[in-house]
Amino acid sequence: MSKILRINTATRTYNFEDVPSELASLGGRALTSKMVLNEVPATCHPLGAANKLIIAPGLLSGSPAANSGRLSVGAKSPLTGGIKESNSGGFVSQKLARLGIKAIVLEGKPDDDDYSMVVITKDGVQILPADEYVGMGNYEAIEKLWAKYGKNTGVMSIGPAGEQRLKAASIQQADLKGTPGRAVGRGGLGAVMGSKKIKAIVVDDKGCDRLPIADAEAFKVANKRWVEMLNNHSVTGQGLPGFGTAVLVNVINEAGALPTKNFRSGRFDHAQDISGEKMVENIKARGGIVSEGCHPGCVIKCSQVYNDKDGKQLTSGFEYETLWAFGAHTTIKDLDDIAMLDRLSDDIGVDTIETGVAIGVAMEGGLLEWGDGKAAIELLKEVGKGTGNGKILGNGAAFVGDALGIDRVPVVKRQGLPAYDPRAVKGVGVTYATSPMGADHTAGYGVTANILKVGGDINPLKKDGNVELSKNLQIATAAIDAAGLCLFVAFAVLDNADGVQTIVDLLNAQYGIKLTPDDVVALGKSILNDEKEFNKRAGFTKLDDQLPEMFNTKFPPHNSEWDFSIDDLQETLNF
Amino acid sequence: MSKILRINTATRTYNFEDVPSELASLGGRALTSKMVLNEVPATCHPLGAANKLIIAPGLLSGSPAANSGRLSVGAKSPLTGGIKESNSGGFVSQKLARLGIKAIVLEGKPDDDDYSMVVITKDGVQILPADEYVGMGNYEAIEKLWAKYGKNTGVMSIGPAGEQRLKAASIQQADLKGTPGRAVGRGGLGAVMGSKKIKAIVVDDKGCDRLPIADAEAFKVANKRWVEMLNNHSVTGQGLPGFGTAVLVNVINEAGALPTKNFRSGRFDHAQDISGEKMVENIKARGGIVSEGCHPGCVIKCSQVYNDKDGKQLTSGFEYETLWAFGAHTTIKDLDDIAMLDRLSDDIGVDTIETGVAIGVAMEGGLLEWGDGKAAIELLKEVGKGTGNGKILGNGAAFVGDALGIDRVPVVKRQGLPAYDPRAVKGVGVTYATSPMGADHTAGYGVTANILKVGGDINPLKKDGNVELSKNLQIATAAIDAAGLCLFVAFAVLDNADGVQTIVDLLNAQYGIKLTPDDVVALGKSILNDEKEFNKRAGFTKLDDQLPEMFNTKFPPHNSEWDFSIDDLQETLNF
Repeated sequence: MSKILRINTATRTYNFEDVPSELASLGGRALTSKMVLNEVPATCHPLGAANKLIIAPGLLSGSPAANSGRLSVGAKSPLTGGIKESNSGGFVSQKLARLGIKAIVLEGKPDDDDYSMVVITKDGVQILPADEYVGMGNYEAIEKLWAKYGKNTGVMSIGPAGEQRLKAASIQQADLKGTPGRAVGRGGLGAVMGSKKIKAIVVDDKGCDRLPIADAEAFKVANKRWVEMLNNHSVTGQGLPGFGTAVLVNVINEAGALPTKNFRSGRFDHAQDISGEKMVENIKARGGIVSEGCHPGCVIKCSQVYNDKDGKQLTSGFEYETLWAFGAHTTIKDLDDIAMLDRLSDDIGVDTIETGVAIGVAMEGGLLEWGDGKAAIELLKEVGKGTGNGKILGNGAAFVGDALGIDRVPVVKRQGLPAYDPRAVKGVGVTYATSPMGADHTAGYGVTANILKVGGDINPLKKDGNVELSKNLQIATAAIDAAGLCLFVAFAVLDNADGVQTIVDLLNAQYGIKLTPDDVVALGKSILNDEKEFNKRAGFTKLDDQLPEMFNTKFPPHNSEWDFSIDDLQETLNF
Repeated sequence: MSKILRINTATRTYNFEDVPSELASLGGRALTSKMVLNEVPATCHPLGAANKLIIAPGLLSGSPAANSGRLSVGAKSPLTGGIKESNSGGFVSQKLARLGIKAIVLEGKPDDDDYSMVVITKDGVQILPADEYVGMGNYEAIEKLWAKYGKNTGVMSIGPAGEQRLKAASIQQADLKGTPGRAVGRGGLGAVMGSKKIKAIVVDDKGCDRLPIADAEAFKVANKRWVEMLNNHSVTGQGLPGFGTAVLVNVINEAGALPTKNFRSGRFDHAQDISGEKMVENIKARGGIVSEGCHPGCVIKCSQVYNDKDGKQLTSGFEYETLWAFGAHTTIKDLDDIAMLDRLSDDIGVDTIETGVAIGVAMEGGLLEWGDGKAAIELLKEVGKGTGNGKILGNGAAFVGDALGIDRVPVVKRQGLPAYDPRAVKGVGVTYATSPMGADHTAGYGVTANILKVGGDINPLKKDGNVELSKNLQIATAAIDAAGLCLFVAFAVLDNADGVQTIVDLLNAQYGIKLTPDDVVALGKSILNDEKEFNKRAGFTKLDDQLPEMFNTKFPPHNSEWDFSIDDLQETLNF
């Protein structure tokens, strides 16, 4: 039986507790959101002792199911003030599952300023002084921790941004190369970890048994079909392995939906320069890695290693949204500058989307010039140094807008909008407005039917069908996040009649249960309802489920408009 | 008939319009709040084109009624996100009234970065380029404007903080000495003026007729009684003229309610050093002015001129709340340092309460040492320079807390708490929690019955009676703010059976109407209802009507606790 590991960060003690029956069938986002709702007072200060950081593997994590190694992290968000779940690849999720740990809960808050680290192995839990790692970037910290605890150890750590408890602070996970390429990025969860003075969590499953599978044969059959499905779909079998998510730069630019210069138009003159094709060209010329998984057992392998001109690793996990945020949004067009911004973000420990959006807002406010990559790099370094401008930037886009006194700030629930203009990809726009997470493309990725024509064909420029699209995707995504599956499996699932059934087969075989696809839909709804309830208790109203005023203009080249009323939007998560 | 002057700041044009009948009987805060509710979309960005800055003399302003020269300024607040009315002395209110201007409305927002100034005389309105004043502190700006437009001209201007549209930015008015000693301080209204690119408004009533009085004889009788009442009360006739509001340092410290070191205890070891008695001693020794009005026609004269050791004016209008914010709250004990902080605030154009609270929060977060007055002065100068740390400080206490990632931040609705601990002066505490303005002592000054035993005797440490006290004071205050009367008249009004009737007599005589005291109460309620309605539309809920978690501890020396539930507090403005 798996257990919940509670760590009292005030007393630096821990205990394992049995999983209450209410939580027994939950994992990943379903579990973090339920526990945040149950245990965190919704009106508490996100950096106070009452907030909790909850870390949970998905339901399928640790099993041989392909692409099931995502780790969910939840808390009250310092960025949005609402509930947050952010998930990432890396090693931790699978190892926790094999260690029989259903969730780690970081509770309380030390009175002193001493940092600790948590080391979890099959022999037990150690809470150790972390003095030697304090102030360190994630690159160095993870390198040292791998040197000490072994290669391929699961590590999640915070950088200087998390130590400063900045609202854009991430938690980074060691990737397959031992660099901090995987980010629990959105919502400032690194600040919550920093407030609890935990620099790193090290997870080692050496000596653990394999995860028990109730019906091994059925699992094997289902997983075979699952892998086949992922390999055969054009997006998960070709597009993503070929160019990573960066394949989207040209696609979204072509669609006129690539937000350029702080959402002024949907086409970036220099899109080619920051495209997936260009990225792959550089990787090949410089001896990097074009296609790699974000966790063991991934068959999509949309990650990569991007080297500098001297052939030395510059960054890894170089995502489309990162390219956009530091690129088209700010009009920086030098791919190596953008790669450096990505590296610095991973090292300092800030979300690349939030930070890129924030740099664009800083340009809007005149703090640096549009398109000046070198100035952006210097500004980002300030975050690591903890200067005044660094603290402004590191607190995200809304904070920068407030600091500079400007009103053109693309945020919902104070979280920066990602890489798809809501007026030109309305299925995503509805998700931005209504997701309990704030502006989050992964919460209901309408790009599928809007642009990629996966799982349907819904006009991205018209209102019709996009509330329904976002609703269905938000429900499905919540369930996928509960399973610990990579979101990209959705492409294959949406285009295969037996897609959902195959996930259900995996879950049933693993746990010896009898879920139906309807149960999965019910789970997705229940997760969203928990999240909405938390936000309601935290003081959110329907007024928070809207885009800011800056989107009340026509968006070129299609000159589409944002035409959803508050009541339209309230329909999205009404079930 | 008086008119409304609308200034379109985008086109730099203006027009006078007739006062609609709904607004005819309103003035001061009643008018600004009604117009903000009617004209400003509650969900708009406070620095966007849709917000409006509304400037209105009180109903009695411009008449010979004693202490009737307060000017109300309203808008959606950049600090709180809710409605705001802030009022101050100075010359503008009376002059606008004599010019027949019921309100000035600054609308729209220029597309360019050019600043303008508005000059209003009986011959008309000019909207002039203000290039030569841009970047200037309020001291220099007002000096130059008096040199150009004449001594005793009404001037309201913003400093570098307002130009940067910072959330703590004030609008300063020329005081009787032509220095910017009078502040429209709270809520960041200077940022709204800055967003509209208006550096200054100059108001000259030369050549105007006296304000018409419907029943001159009745007015004279009422005003005689009014002056007598103010002169004869111990607070308005002796305490305030003798030591200014600074008389309260020792009183509140003695009561154990002077929040010290970011609200850790109610007694400051160095209270004597920053007391009114010490201030007056310095003023006398250095040749300043102990007692002066904040506007012509004041008979209380709680203002002063405080000179430095060389006998040169250091600051004026040196209030108790300023002494507390820069003093006990930060544990700075050098009165001259505090006076310099007051001067710099007036010059740069920031609210002294918000800025002092913010400096204490910055100390809490380790940005500077507790009690270091020189470091505080340097930090405040950064606001004028527009550095990163300057922008952090200039955006107020909540912003500093967010920037530094700490949770001990004394704010309600993101506005810093003033100089009375809510656990030790519960009548004021209820006002902090529930006022639509955010934490504002002037919105319902329970110090009266709690500490000074004026208008009743209600235990400041107990719950009983304090909701009712705050309610009644909030209603009365709203009406006083509508009349353009100085809030301190309340002391005399509360202790004289004919107090309210005398104000009613003044209003009836001036306008030839037949109000009763009940009408005045109804006006106060109606103002508060307008303000609550705006905030509701802006997304505020009852969760916003609470103190932050940091007040959930016992407060020494009396070890009193904050024991009001959400429902208790909701009763306060339920009528």
